[in-house]
Amino acid sequence: MTADFRHRIDAFGRELTPDLLGGTSMMMAGMFEGMDPQTIEEVDISYGPDPRHRLDLYREQNLENAPVFVFVHGGGFIMGDKRSEKGPFYRNVGDYAARQGWIGVVPTYPLAPDHPWPAGPEALRHVVDWIRRNVAQYGGDPDRIVLSGQSAGAVHVASYVAHPDYHVMPGGGVRGAVLMSGLFDTTAGEPNDNHRAYYGTDASKYAEANCMPGLLATHIPLCFTVSEFDPPAFQAEAARTVGAWGEVRGAFPEMHYLVGHNHLTPSQSLGTPVKDVEALLADFVGRVTA
Amino acid sequence: MTADFRHRIDAFGRELTPDLLGGTSMMMAGMFEGMDPQTIEEVDISYGPDPRHRLDLYREQNLENAPVFVFVHGGGFIMGDKRSEKGPFYRNVGDYAARQGWIGVVPTYPLAPDHPWPAGPEALRHVVDWIRRNVAQYGGDPDRIVLSGQSAGAVHVASYVAHPDYHVMPGGGVRGAVLMSGLFDTTAGEPNDNHRAYYGTDASKYAEANCMPGLLATHIPLCFTVSEFDPPAFQAEAARTVGAWGEVRGAFPEMHYLVGHNHLTPSQSLGTPVKDVEALLADFVGRVTA
Repeated sequence: MTADFRHRIDAFGRELTPDLLGGTSMMMAGMFEGMDPQTIEEVDISYGPDPRHRLDLYREQNLENAPVFVFVHGGGFIMGDKRSEKGPFYRNVGDYAARQGWIGVVPTYPLAPDHPWPAGPEALRHVVDWIRRNVAQYGGDPDRIVLSGQSAGAVHVASYVAHPDYHVMPGGGVRGAVLMSGLFDTTAGEPNDNHRAYYGTDASKYAEANCMPGLLATHIPLCFTVSEFDPPAFQAEAARTVGAWGEVRGAFPEMHYLVGHNHLTPSQSLGTPVKDVEALLADFVGRVTA
Repeated sequence: MTADFRHRIDAFGRELTPDLLGGTSMMMAGMFEGMDPQTIEEVDISYGPDPRHRLDLYREQNLENAPVFVFVHGGGFIMGDKRSEKGPFYRNVGDYAARQGWIGVVPTYPLAPDHPWPAGPEALRHVVDWIRRNVAQYGGDPDRIVLSGQSAGAVHVASYVAHPDYHVMPGGGVRGAVLMSGLFDTTAGEPNDNHRAYYGTDASKYAEANCMPGLLATHIPLCFTVSEFDPPAFQAEAARTVGAWGEVRGAFPEMHYLVGHNHLTPSQSLGTPVKDVEALLADFVGRVTA
């Protein structure tokens, strides 16, 4: 993190405007250092019945019992993809995982409004199930899966963690979860268009989809991030999460405040010279898979 | 931060027992890389009327308009000192500041119970006043002062920031404050022996000393830290602070969660191979003094 990087990110503002989304993605794509030639990619593996139940898998050769790092992309529940033809996202995340000696798994998932709640936790259940059944053949350890996600992807990961009804086995079958810039409490604040598209328009049903009680109760280790230039609603949500965690668990959660980052850069910085999130993820995955 | 360092710190537990306090200090002293031969130390400069109104000043030669970094030690309001004959603390903090090209100012202050509240903010008022009048002759910029403190030292810094009655000038005369592992809300939880020694035994008067309302209202940039192995009371306080900040300011405060650190190591790690807090401080001071 340099002062220059922070100033350039700051200049995009906080709100998720086309200028911020497009400008950040273009800037970060320009900083990407390229795929590691050692990384092997397997694209569009089916992990479930829907056409969008597809994942890409990244690894180096000759792995044995490697940790498995899953990254679920964002897009407000209604858009986004696991890889873009035009840019490096999110091949950069899979490549980062491969460079750590992990298996990188980058799924996409069915989108709202055609696929409303609980399409997210159902997709994650399929992902975890697929990994546990198949990852050994790639050199991965089915007992060392770490989930991660950004924005709506963080919500889908959180909804799996927080709702044991969707778990593939008691305890969830994963070692930890990284939740970057998500809105987990469906009962807080006014629902926006994206929320209505995914959760529906009947706010009385939002309690069922709410991740917060399950996050506060889970035994799965969690690593949250909030960005300095996240929109105010995301910052306020992160602050509420910390406050509630303190009340319920009498402790401070592992919540990392990312100086100089905005809503997109934590995942887009992987594979660039901005190394703070790379280090944070390596540390967390190392701890929970040790 | 290595896994080995974290495991060794974890082994001391969380509670501020003699084993944790002595063991951590001995371990961190053994990791200290030594004073920079370039660092000039001026010891026991008087900054106020009390015999303990004394500060040490650290710098390299030929400075011009350098930022001034103040570090206030902890010790539960009743003990502690700015430097120990036996070990490197807290010469290590002054030396760290000097190595950044800053002026390091490490004061001590009158102790409870002989010197109860508001001895802390009064001492800080004297410190800031002394710096603003005198630091230019050492090459420092009186308009670029950053305060920091750990534990009770963080509380003393917070009490200055939060109580404009003690400010040397409107706005406080400082660019920012770093608050490491402090208990700022005197109205939360049960007062312990240290609190009674400093704040007195009449809990109805604690509201006057409470830092929280002033911290939530200040325009002075704040950087908080909470350690993974801080005692539960400190973690819960940090979580309450974040929750209250979110409610009042609609944002997440700059609160850094320090993986692998305990109550003492953030300041004791300066000048050791554990560089995360060095980097965090350099980044914050750089931003607020730019």
